[in-house]
Amino acid sequence: MAQRGARVVGLKCMKCGREYAPGDAAYTCESCGLDGILDVLYDYDEIARSFTRDDLAASRENSHWRYLPLMPVDSSESLPVLRAGWTPLYNGRGLLELPNLFIKDDSLNPTASLKDRATSVGIARAVAENASAVAAASTGNAGSSLAGFAAAEHVPCYIFVPADAPKPKIAQLLVYGATVFAVDGGYDDAFDLAAEAIEHYGWYNRSCAVNPYLIEGKKTVAFEICEQLEFRAPDKVFIPVGDGCITSGVYKGFAEFTRLGFIERVPELIGVQAEGCDPIKVAFDSNSDLVPCEARTIADSIAAGHPRNWRKATRGIRTSGGSMMTVTDDEILGAIAALGRATGIFAEPAGATAFAGLTKAVSEGMVGSDETVVVLMTGSGLKDSDSAMRAAGQAVPVGRSLEDVKSALAT
Amino acid sequence: MAQRGARVVGLKCMKCGREYAPGDAAYTCESCGLDGILDVLYDYDEIARSFTRDDLAASRENSHWRYLPLMPVDSSESLPVLRAGWTPLYNGRGLLELPNLFIKDDSLNPTASLKDRATSVGIARAVAENASAVAAASTGNAGSSLAGFAAAEHVPCYIFVPADAPKPKIAQLLVYGATVFAVDGGYDDAFDLAAEAIEHYGWYNRSCAVNPYLIEGKKTVAFEICEQLEFRAPDKVFIPVGDGCITSGVYKGFAEFTRLGFIERVPELIGVQAEGCDPIKVAFDSNSDLVPCEARTIADSIAAGHPRNWRKATRGIRTSGGSMMTVTDDEILGAIAALGRATGIFAEPAGATAFAGLTKAVSEGMVGSDETVVVLMTGSGLKDSDSAMRAAGQAVPVGRSLEDVKSALAT
Repeated sequence: MAQRGARVVGLKCMKCGREYAPGDAAYTCESCGLDGILDVLYDYDEIARSFTRDDLAASRENSHWRYLPLMPVDSSESLPVLRAGWTPLYNGRGLLELPNLFIKDDSLNPTASLKDRATSVGIARAVAENASAVAAASTGNAGSSLAGFAAAEHVPCYIFVPADAPKPKIAQLLVYGATVFAVDGGYDDAFDLAAEAIEHYGWYNRSCAVNPYLIEGKKTVAFEICEQLEFRAPDKVFIPVGDGCITSGVYKGFAEFTRLGFIERVPELIGVQAEGCDPIKVAFDSNSDLVPCEARTIADSIAAGHPRNWRKATRGIRTSGGSMMTVTDDEILGAIAALGRATGIFAEPAGATAFAGLTKAVSEGMVGSDETVVVLMTGSGLKDSDSAMRAAGQAVPVGRSLEDVKSALAT
Repeated sequence: MAQRGARVVGLKCMKCGREYAPGDAAYTCESCGLDGILDVLYDYDEIARSFTRDDLAASRENSHWRYLPLMPVDSSESLPVLRAGWTPLYNGRGLLELPNLFIKDDSLNPTASLKDRATSVGIARAVAENASAVAAASTGNAGSSLAGFAAAEHVPCYIFVPADAPKPKIAQLLVYGATVFAVDGGYDDAFDLAAEAIEHYGWYNRSCAVNPYLIEGKKTVAFEICEQLEFRAPDKVFIPVGDGCITSGVYKGFAEFTRLGFIERVPELIGVQAEGCDPIKVAFDSNSDLVPCEARTIADSIAAGHPRNWRKATRGIRTSGGSMMTVTDDEILGAIAALGRATGIFAEPAGATAFAGLTKAVSEGMVGSDETVVVLMTGSGLKDSDSAMRAAGQAVPVGRSLEDVKSALAT
């Protein structure tokens, strides 16, 4: 029997508070335009009546669709083929002298990044709406995620990338059969051009910053953390921050589980940006509107100089009692190596950024050794081998004799 | 309470049939040397008394350790941290006009290849034996798998690679903190030097061609296929063949489930080699001993000119009633693109080789449309973006205006 998803009761503008009936707003708020990102509203009392922790304990669903009763998709019959979510939460086993450190490895998604959670919901809705095609601007992960899911659902796909996006990420898009536009400019140019083309052609928009339903996929990473910690909320969660969409999703996930009584409180969310691209940190610290900046960081997946979802992100962090911080590119490269060596988890730069933030926070005494801490690892290091090589050094060249090995080990 | 693994009752040489007690042989047969690869023996009657399909139906174990009662590891208490196996089996939804086609996506393992299954068992045994270090020769996937698992278990790791192995694969090794020896030669040179160094230093040997326990990890992919098909064995399984170890493991998995009555019969195993490196096909077709060849193929993960496990592999294929075939590098590149476009699965060349084989087999009328067919996808395309670029074409360069997009789409 088909299981039911959550009934969406409305959409509410994050900026002006205006509410819409579910069918009345396609993307952002009519009054506020692109600045008025909507939030999806549910009737939690209704959900609570038919969805419990015991249901989850009994679930054998091996993906994030185990949370279907909290997701804006009608029925389990129309779910995408590719398996998103239900990724491992690894015990950090004393790393950084934190006995209760956990690392959420979201590289184990179909296209090797957390973005698959959002795409999974987006593509389900696009198919339900009979969209002619799906499209997005992307520095890489969101695009490859959309291309992969679109391929699996046999939906045409258009992706707009900055011309200098890493080659492996572009290769992944192309293999999935997407039409890839390499835009002469940065991420923000690609974003603007995608928005224009999407409007012109009527494609389904997979931008988390515009489409309110994508956050509903990202929130599942928080659900999983709660369930994997046996419904004890962690004290702190470290999150890499680019456009602000992951942060917004993580906040919403913890808030919803709190609302349902599955956990006691939302953990402190610590947003980590690259020092060379920190507009959300600046906005957060000054409690003012976002001022776009130029993006200068190796962490291309969070190199968003004009992040669109800063309002949802900063609100979530503030409500959680958390904070924003920055790390340098060198700290990010160091974190790739440290994480790989200590845990066997291979992160791309953005994926290691939260761990870099935690490392810095520990060194500054911001984290108590008795605290339960979760670090989000959001994308695979296989996506950016140049950064990996910079982080990890070089192989040892040897000839074909044992003596060569002995000499190499003796030095 | 700790769950128990399978009790190993002996080891048997694949060549001469000599049997050993479990503690009496470290690696290969004393009489036959490297040519005498051992097979791990269990008491299946004993296993059948305490392990049933109902146990599996009730299991919430989200890794291949759900098959612990069939694996040579003492107890669930000593299992590695990283989560190997229980990867998705995707419905091919009519691809190649086969309504019952399934694709096993083993890129969704911790280090993005099927090799993690073998490593997972190897590292558990290395830790149980208090090994000072682990080591392997590898074209890439086995090495990065070992390096990742060794990092997570805090065991020193030495990897021997051919100097021309793809850069992303080397980067992955280095990030995991392994000592990587780039050997001036091909895979076979790396293999020989690794063997010498392993013997000299007494490291634990993670070579499937030497260490009989690693196959015991690889066999779990067959267990999962059976369970995911609700214990109906497929008619045919297409497998990429390099060293012969995956084939050997797949055969053993199906044979064990048949022995336990979980499925009715072993499916026909179709081994697929690259045309430029097909020594196992030659040995199989001529029913004679293996003659090493030079390896010339883009599918580096199966470019083994001197495959060590050909005897186990050919025996398994023959017993299953299956066959061997070859595909060209162009067919492999075509399969990467075809698979990506149709299913959203991104394969490296070796990972797409089985699908290339199926495509050819269908075109030659070797596969009935009513047959249930499974294709093994063994490694992620992110590991070899150069091949992906060759397979998938190029992005479309555009300026920043909608007119540029319109022009591009009009051509």
